[in-house]
Amino acid sequence: MESYKTLEKVCRKLNDINQAKAALHWDMSVTMPAGGAEARGHQLATLTSIHHAILSDDGVGELIAKAKSEENKLDDWQKANLYEIGKTYNHTASVPRKLAHELTKEGIACEMVWREARAANDFNMLKPRLEKVVKLVREIASIKAEVFGCSPYDAMLDQYDRGRKSAQIDEVFDNLQAFLPDFIKAVVEKQSSQPKITELKGLFPVEKQKRLAHKMLETIGFDFTRGRLDESHHPFCGGYPGDVRITTRYDENNFLSAIMGVQHEAGHAMYEANLPQRWLSQPVGEARGMSIHESQSLLLEMQVCRSKEFMEFATPLYRDTLGGKGKAWTPENLYAICTKVGPSLIRVDADEVTYPAHILLRYYIEKYILSGDMEVADLPDAWAQGMEKFLGIKPDSDKNGCMQDIHWMDGSFGYFPTYTLGAIYAAQLFKAARESSPAIVEGISGGDFAPLMGWLKTNVHEHGCRYSSEELVQKATGKGLDVEIYKEHLKARYLG
Amino acid sequence: MESYKTLEKVCRKLNDINQAKAALHWDMSVTMPAGGAEARGHQLATLTSIHHAILSDDGVGELIAKAKSEENKLDDWQKANLYEIGKTYNHTASVPRKLAHELTKEGIACEMVWREARAANDFNMLKPRLEKVVKLVREIASIKAEVFGCSPYDAMLDQYDRGRKSAQIDEVFDNLQAFLPDFIKAVVEKQSSQPKITELKGLFPVEKQKRLAHKMLETIGFDFTRGRLDESHHPFCGGYPGDVRITTRYDENNFLSAIMGVQHEAGHAMYEANLPQRWLSQPVGEARGMSIHESQSLLLEMQVCRSKEFMEFATPLYRDTLGGKGKAWTPENLYAICTKVGPSLIRVDADEVTYPAHILLRYYIEKYILSGDMEVADLPDAWAQGMEKFLGIKPDSDKNGCMQDIHWMDGSFGYFPTYTLGAIYAAQLFKAARESSPAIVEGISGGDFAPLMGWLKTNVHEHGCRYSSEELVQKATGKGLDVEIYKEHLKARYLG
Repeated sequence: MESYKTLEKVCRKLNDINQAKAALHWDMSVTMPAGGAEARGHQLATLTSIHHAILSDDGVGELIAKAKSEENKLDDWQKANLYEIGKTYNHTASVPRKLAHELTKEGIACEMVWREARAANDFNMLKPRLEKVVKLVREIASIKAEVFGCSPYDAMLDQYDRGRKSAQIDEVFDNLQAFLPDFIKAVVEKQSSQPKITELKGLFPVEKQKRLAHKMLETIGFDFTRGRLDESHHPFCGGYPGDVRITTRYDENNFLSAIMGVQHEAGHAMYEANLPQRWLSQPVGEARGMSIHESQSLLLEMQVCRSKEFMEFATPLYRDTLGGKGKAWTPENLYAICTKVGPSLIRVDADEVTYPAHILLRYYIEKYILSGDMEVADLPDAWAQGMEKFLGIKPDSDKNGCMQDIHWMDGSFGYFPTYTLGAIYAAQLFKAARESSPAIVEGISGGDFAPLMGWLKTNVHEHGCRYSSEELVQKATGKGLDVEIYKEHLKARYLG
Repeated sequence: MESYKTLEKVCRKLNDINQAKAALHWDMSVTMPAGGAEARGHQLATLTSIHHAILSDDGVGELIAKAKSEENKLDDWQKANLYEIGKTYNHTASVPRKLAHELTKEGIACEMVWREARAANDFNMLKPRLEKVVKLVREIASIKAEVFGCSPYDAMLDQYDRGRKSAQIDEVFDNLQAFLPDFIKAVVEKQSSQPKITELKGLFPVEKQKRLAHKMLETIGFDFTRGRLDESHHPFCGGYPGDVRITTRYDENNFLSAIMGVQHEAGHAMYEANLPQRWLSQPVGEARGMSIHESQSLLLEMQVCRSKEFMEFATPLYRDTLGGKGKAWTPENLYAICTKVGPSLIRVDADEVTYPAHILLRYYIEKYILSGDMEVADLPDAWAQGMEKFLGIKPDSDKNGCMQDIHWMDGSFGYFPTYTLGAIYAAQLFKAARESSPAIVEGISGGDFAPLMGWLKTNVHEHGCRYSSEELVQKATGKGLDVEIYKEHLKARYLG
């Protein structure tokens, strides 16, 4: 037990450093003046290198080996914890420090150039920098593939969703690829024949929108003594259990953009807030990867807050807080606005139905790039072809095409599929929750989210990393990843 | 040179950790929700112990010795930097890690109990915890005394004001002790025979006060792209060059409390903002200890912003921003309010004249306690006697007596005298600045602080830690610590 206990101590220290970094990142996005950027960069780099040095120390490897040899003395939580520690150690220690450092450095440089290149719509400016990043990522992925005995792409996936295999994603995404294009067309056609949407016109003062956002979060169950709501350029959920911090941005012409951001981030926040208390300083106490995290944000934003039941509760709240009047402010009209479908160029602005098509495109491309079957130079063409194929539209520029996302710039390959895996899990989890008790849907239309949050806490949040994503969803719903339930949800909502 | 260069690298890392801690402290005081307290405590403790481990490593000691043996190869800045590194190393490495850790732990525990004990006015609740802290501080001070070859109290002083000796403070404070009691009486008598002050009545909305604080900071030269102004329970100046953060608190019945807080903290902030650019990551690039730091805040708050010249500029600004009308809003009346003198129980609420009396009391007591000539149990009596002697009033309770300050609770003995040393230096520096050019005082009455700030930057700020406090003031004014100049200032302002 002693080796295991020593590992827990090391993890507490690593957790402190990670939390400090999270707080500094939040500050960087929300409160830091421009003059602090350089110093903050140095602080984060130093904390990262200290974290790396502590974790990848040979002594830690020996402790893990020793603890594994005595694993029979550990309980289930401890075993799961040891498994996570070993995985994180291997991900870190397997990559030579110089190589890891080079990727960090090149990633920052590439992101900088990307900002400029995107603004100037100049792919050739970005190309050489992104090629450097891709070269390093390929190198790292093949080292990790060796260590984990899997494909390079699966080794990258494992960073974001422990144990996820691309073979499973291929199957699901091929299914979606066959389904989506025709489905999108059918939905667009159906919606074009429906009564016209009445736009929500008006100027919505930021102060009123903030009050609305607060009320929404309180309804959802967000605890303001253990978290905050602020503004930032891109909405995000930061912090850690006990101090979970959501941001959104306000547009005085469009309050739905802020409130939907809040609903999405609240899903992440409630997950963080409800992680297992006893294990908060340990890897097993963390959230179970990006697919499950996204399932929580999408469950709230898409499954719940775009449902007809939610509109019953939300419409008077929106109306009263913002002073809305007239025929635009009915549950039916708000529902129509929130479920409007149409192909568009930008992923982050996409609706629920076309969003996965954007993800399919990125998934196939990043797999080809990682395997060497595609080069950075091929990106603009591949993008145009993919958009045509999946969404029936062509990018008007690289800026609104292959340069729109930040992910690849710092080497985050393997991240994109988790958005759609999350959307699928969200459909499965919400179905199981609904079927567990009528109080859940009744609660939503009555503004009482406690039954839903109770179910999520018991079935998802408080398990931390004890199970894999698949095991977790299996236990909660009786099934692993099931794209058919997701498709049923889309069909019911959009063609029902 | 190589040993020295390696030391610079170590210092950059230590600086990153210290800055990260500073940012986390700011967040703790300004933005953190209550639920984040426990995690933040762990984060700060871990960063402190990492900092301690890096700094007190034997290798660092060897590098310092090697660099010192090749000191002739270094320029003046580098030599001063090496001196500071050596001092910091000795302060840290000389104290056994266990002992340092125990003081940190007991200090936190004592502070917690102090909050409760003070609220309950229960000295006996505090006593055993403070005794533990005092025992540890005595132990640490005697270890450091051995290392530095000085008295234990001087070893503590050295932490806050490098090289300061209590023999010098004794002389100056004995002088003040002989001067102050009669002087205070004379001022109170004189003021009682002067025309009555007209109170500033009115409710001053926080938003208006904030606008006033912003304008004041802009006038002083504070750069909001490299700093912030926020609210916290106690005003402070945090952050670091490039990202200097001031806080204040707002009272809707008394706008002067917020604006004076801002003026005080702005003095600290301008010092930090103007530290030598080239040396920002090194000890020599830091501010020159607490006496000089306080000289900068008091120069602005007391010397400048309570002067008649300043009132000429500030009165219309206060009037316009806050909508003040009538005879209370004249430069003469505002000056009378800001220079009102009267003995009171609480140090932080004291006026310019009685403030040093509070410091004398604390200085003598903490010296006796450290030497063992006084025990914690003697505090209430000693306090009552001292207040009677220095200010002619008796504390109505321990809460408003010996339990009012936080400093001793975490073992900060040797800090108090720097407040009054700062006040003395402030008088000296402002006199030298005024005498250097008439533009400085003209600027103040015209709302142009650039001449004053230029003088302070050149003569104080941009020297960092290159000189000792005494050398710095000597170079700037032609004289070391000179209590007579301070007394002249008090006499001119209050009996002139």
